[in-house]
Formats: sequence, C-alpha cells, structure tokens
Amino acid sequence: MSQKIVYLDNNATTMTDPEVFEAMKPYFCDLYGNPSSMHEFGGQVAKAVEKAREQVKDFIGAKDAKEIIFTASGSEGDNMAIRGILEANKNKKHIITTKIEHPAVLNLFKYFEKQGYEVTYLSVDSKGNLDLNELSNSVTEDTAIVSLMYANNETGVILPVEKAAKIVKQKNPKTKVHVDAVQAAGKIPLDVKNTDIDLLTIAGHKIHAPKGIGALYVKTGTLLPAFVIGGHQERGKRAGTENVPYIVGLGKACEIAKNSLEYEMNEVKRLRDKLENGIIKSVYNAKVNGSTTNRVPNTTNIGFQYIEGELILLHLSDLGICASSGSACTSGSLEPSHVLKSMGVPFEALHGSIRFSLSRFTTEEEIDYVLKVLPDVIFKLNKISPYQRELKALEEAHKR
Amino acid sequence: MSQKIVYLDNNATTMTDPEVFEAMKPYFCDLYGNPSSMHEFGGQVAKAVEKAREQVKDFIGAKDAKEIIFTASGSEGDNMAIRGILEANKNKKHIITTKIEHPAVLNLFKYFEKQGYEVTYLSVDSKGNLDLNELSNSVTEDTAIVSLMYANNETGVILPVEKAAKIVKQKNPKTKVHVDAVQAAGKIPLDVKNTDIDLLTIAGHKIHAPKGIGALYVKTGTLLPAFVIGGHQERGKRAGTENVPYIVGLGKACEIAKNSLEYEMNEVKRLRDKLENGIIKSVYNAKVNGSTTNRVPNTTNIGFQYIEGELILLHLSDLGICASSGSACTSGSLEPSHVLKSMGVPFEALHGSIRFSLSRFTTEEEIDYVLKVLPDVIFKLNKISPYQRELKALEEAHKR
Repeated sequence: MSQKIVYLDNNATTMTDPEVFEAMKPYFCDLYGNPSSMHEFGGQVAKAVEKAREQVKDFIGAKDAKEIIFTASGSEGDNMAIRGILEANKNKKHIITTKIEHPAVLNLFKYFEKQGYEVTYLSVDSKGNLDLNELSNSVTEDTAIVSLMYANNETGVILPVEKAAKIVKQKNPKTKVHVDAVQAAGKIPLDVKNTDIDLLTIAGHKIHAPKGIGALYVKTGTLLPAFVIGGHQERGKRAGTENVPYIVGLGKACEIAKNSLEYEMNEVKRLRDKLENGIIKSVYNAKVNGSTTNRVPNTTNIGFQYIEGELILLHLSDLGICASSGSACTSGSLEPSHVLKSMGVPFEALHGSIRFSLSRFTTEEEIDYVLKVLPDVIFKLNKISPYQRELKALEEAHKR
Repeated sequence: MSQKIVYLDNNATTMTDPEVFEAMKPYFCDLYGNPSSMHEFGGQVAKAVEKAREQVKDFIGAKDAKEIIFTASGSEGDNMAIRGILEANKNKKHIITTKIEHPAVLNLFKYFEKQGYEVTYLSVDSKGNLDLNELSNSVTEDTAIVSLMYANNETGVILPVEKAAKIVKQKNPKTKVHVDAVQAAGKIPLDVKNTDIDLLTIAGHKIHAPKGIGALYVKTGTLLPAFVIGGHQERGKRAGTENVPYIVGLGKACEIAKNSLEYEMNEVKRLRDKLENGIIKSVYNAKVNGSTTNRVPNTTNIGFQYIEGELILLHLSDLGICASSGSACTSGSLEPSHVLKSMGVPFEALHGSIRFSLSRFTTEEEIDYVLKVLPDVIFKLNKISPYQRELKALEEAHKR
C-alpha cells in the first residue's frame, strides 16, 4: 500500500499506539520469563502483569485489581461472563439482552435459546434507545443474567446501563448484570465501582492496544467458574501462560485512554461532527442513523438512501478511505445490519448505511479529504441507482 | 537485571525469536486493519493470516490449512478440543487420559469426573512410558475421547501417540483422539496427516513465538462446536478479531522450527547430554528421572536426592540460571510433581528434582557455566540436609 490511508474504521479495530508498542517491546525478546516461574527472571515479569492489572482497574474504576481477568478478546470476555454465570446458576432459565448486541452476545444468546433457555430480546426505538420499562417488566425470579452493551458498535448510541443495572437489581437482586463496554471504553468515562454492574467486558484493540487482548471485570463476590481449566493463572478462571507483552500493552493503553478522554470528548467529537455535518450538507440523500445526542464522540452512521453500502465502501477504499457497513464481525455476509433493522431504518437507507469511526489519531486534514472526495462518490453511485425518481425527490427536498 | 541470564527453562516458555518479532512488527502500528473489513487495508491483513495458517499446516503436517484453528494458548487448545468433543458426543460418558498430563488436560478431566463422567487415568512406568495394553483394554463403546500428551513437559519422555491413536481406532473408530503436542512441537517431527489423530494442540510460546497464541488441529470431518461464540472468525469455532501480529508470528515460528529440527535433534541434544552427563558425573546425589532414550532432545530432569528443589532453584536464580521444578503451571504450590509421583520416583528425589530445558539459543558457554557453578550449589545444600547418613552412602557409592 503506497497510498496514504485515511482510517475511519476505529470501531472495527484501532492502530496500536506506538507508545503502547514501546511498552510491550521488552517483553518479547528480553524479559520473556514465565510469570509463574520460581526464578527472579520470571518474577519480575509477574510484577509487570500486576502493574497492568492496576492500570486496567483504574481505567474502568474498579475497586480492586483482583476484579480484573485478562482475556484474549472482547468476544471471549462476553462468552466467559455469560457462560460462566449460567453455569453457576443452572436452575435459572431466563436470560435478557437487546436486539442490537454484538454477535459475541447475540449469537451466544441464540445458542442458549436453542439449548432451551427463555430469552428476552429488548427492542430499541428509531433512535436506538432502550426502553427501561420493557427491561423492568422483563426481569423475573428466573432471570439469571441481563447482558447489555454500553455503546452500540454501529451507531455509537449509548445505552443507560447504570440505570438499567439498578432497575434489574430492584426487581431481582440475584440477577447478574453484564455490560459489554467494548465500544464505550476510551470514549466515555467508566466508573464501575459505583454501579450495580457485576461483570464488564473491554477489548484492547478498540483502545489502541493490539488485537488479541481484553479484560473482564468480575465484581468481588460474583461466582464465576473457570472459562479455560488448567493452571492457576488469572485466579484459576483462565488457565494458560499469561500473554505478558499484550497485558503490559493493555495496561499502558488503558492509562493513555484515561488521560485522553477529554480529548476524545472534545476534539474527536468536533472532527466527527464536522464530518457528519459536512456530509449531510453536501450529499442530498444522506441521513444520520440513530441518536445524535446520546452517542459516543467518535462514531457517525450515515444512511445514503437508494444506493449500495458495499459499493460506497469499495469506492472509498480505492481512494484510501477505510470505513465500514455493519460491524466487521458480521460483514462478509450481505445481510443488512441487525442493529439498523431493529431501529426500523427503512429499506432505502438500510443497504446504504456507512459507519465512520474516528480516533485520537484522526486529523483535520483527513476529515477535509473525505469531505472533498466523498460527495462525488455518492453522486456517481446515485446515477447508477435504479431509484432515480426517489433520488430526484430527495434532491428537491434538500435544495429547499 | 544487569546479570547475564542463562535460560534453561524453555519448557516453561521461550524467548520470542527476534526474526519472529520482526515478522510481527508491521502488524501493530502499520498494517493494523481488521481482516474482516471490506476495505483493501483490512484485506491485505487477511492474506497474512492465511499465509500463517499455511505455515502452521506445513509444520504439523496437516492436509489442509482449513484444519488449523488459531487459539490464545495451549491450554485453550486443550480445552477447546476436549470440551468440544464432549459437547458434540453428549451420550458418551467415558473419557481416557494419562496421569502425567499437563494441568490443562488433567484438571479438565477432573472437572468432568465431578460432572459425572467415568475417567480412566492411564499409568506410566518408572521411566515415564505408557502401557499400550492398558490403553487398549480401557477403550469401550462409551469412550468419547482419549487425550494424550506427545511429550511430557517435566521429563521430556515421548509417548507413542501415533500407535496409541491406531489402537484406539481399532477398538472404537468413533472415539476421538486428542494429542497435546505442546512440548513435542519443534523438538521432534510432526506429521499428523498420516496418523489416526483427530485433534492436536500446539502453543506458540514453546517454539519461540510469543505467549498468547497457539493452534488446534481439527481433522476434516471432526465435528467440533464453537469454543467462543460470536463472529465468523476461525470458521465460526472461535469468535473474536484475529490476533494478527501473533498469528503472523506463529506462522514464522513454525517455519523456523521446521527448519531447525535437525539442529534441535543434533546440537541441542548434544548440549543437553553434555549438561546431563556432566552433572551426573560430578554430583554424587544426582540421578536422571525418566527414560534417557525415548525423550525430546532439549530436556533433562535430574533428581538431587535428599535436598529441596526450591532451594536449588533459588540458589541457581542468584547465579543467573533459570531452571524449574515441576511445571510452571503447577508451581507456586509446594506439592511435589504429579508426573514424578506417577512414575514412582522415591520421596528422596521427588522434592529435589530439577528440570533443565534447553533451546536452539542455548550456547556451549552457558552449559559450561552451569557445569562449573552447579556442583558447589548442590554440595552446599547437601551439607544442610537432615539426611547426612543417606548422603554419605550415596557419596561412597559414587566413588566406586
């Protein structure tokens, strides 16, 4: 790739921060001991792992570093939390989630549904917001777990998980609350200790640590069986030699993310808003999907009505611009996004919706470049759309 | 650590080969796209993942790269294989393993025993060898899986897994055979396609890839449910964004390991034998544990009779020498090794057994250094042992 890349797909994955890479580097070829070893060469590595655990604890606002379990991904964290709680509460057969979860939660709930569990899939409104009354009415004596995402990966819309957790506990104090915070971490402040949340998942590669590391918060007193059985690592909950470089990297990434929150919520938001407003203004068939107020600062999801999202992405890719339709984890299929469908986005925008997700590495020049070249891409695609009459009407409305 | 380290604990974990590190490097801060993304920036990364899958396939001698699933560790591979086969064969309630497995297999079998499974734990003789007749007599119509390690992590003794797999299939063609090849990989040639083995686990960090990556071989036609449910990654068997840098690193490590086998089996073996013979010759209370003929080339396990292993390790650590007693995954506890106990190693050697495990990075100078300083450590510890009469007798016998 000789072309410069404008990377606006940070909800799919992020660049490893060079500072994070530098922090990890010594643990490959120099400090490569096994933290479980008796010798000092391993012992010093164990200390680095515990320092990282503290950094993750501070980042999510946990009470105690013991509440942090390192995982290999957000998907693993989600699976560990949900499978574990169901294994520890075998008599309870009702579980609750939303229709807009990431596949790591949604497909797991579908799996348990097939195993005989009763599943409530909570709806969202046209802005992507959750109805807390529906949640409250769904929790019963038999509810083992409620799993909610903190921020949606496709639209960036924030769910009121703290309020939701409180409501769940009021209805049934024994029901466990898991929050998939993969897309919220690093974008809005987390402070889990002052909430009713029992378990919370984060993934390193969404906050500029590498792909292949994550963490699961497990509140003290929450019974969770081992996900990988074997050695004593991660307090017996996840056997396997610790991924020391990535653990150190995740710690560093959490420290930086905590210090960058102000920047995310101000400067990244400003660039996102500039991009979004610029597109809406210049492209007559563009429309934002989801709430524009209750949203993480880096994400915008824009429906380009009556044209194909995949075509837009390929044209943008040719121009060096990386964006996404649906989530990377469901892409490959041409099925329209389950998130936008759940929000009732009409068919004419459903297939042409593009997610732009920024990061603290996104520059003003990059946004200006996209605003310069994107309108032409859309206008070209408008011309080959079979919906010429409908596009004409949108064009007229835009002029007014 | 200003002191130079003599690292003879390669069965616990290895140094990442600088060449492996160089191969991984671009995938952190430059080629950081998500392999599942639609854009070319992600697409090129997907190609790197598939190249690595080919390298792993070639290394273990699989037929098809599709048979390779990337995991986060050897423990995960073991868990994925065994849990998966039992989930896919719920009507079968008998499982077989050996008494000398790694905790990732042994503790998992104990877990299933508690869940009501009937478990056969095969014995080994005083040399650590398996009795194939006992295996043959154990397999029944109800046997879901037989899980055997290829080489023991503590003694290096090789089990006849290919013969064993054949015997299992003769008794019950439907019984699945899983091989934990974590300690055999890179030390002896693997060629899984010409065997009756259905599943085989390797771990990157034992072959100079980083900690936190591994692979599970799943023979075509073997039904294995997903271990992590979510996205479509790893053919739906292990959801989660691919750990691209480590996958690339594992591929490279496999390629190098394949090319280094000759060196391992000749030069590493020569150094191991030099170390072992040197110790046996100069230390009167030293005795090799396990077979010295049927063994991987890098490992020696030496019992220093009537003294404490942990004390030896601490003294060696002070001299910059890294070795191990028992496996790192069970250390921390002062329980004597379950492997040596199963071999009937008598109590006087059980608590003073040390594993030295070399690698292709071990030098002649390092071995000479150990041979120079180790005898003094042992003689010092002999002096404070409460077993003076027994030691005296050993000294006399050694002189003859």
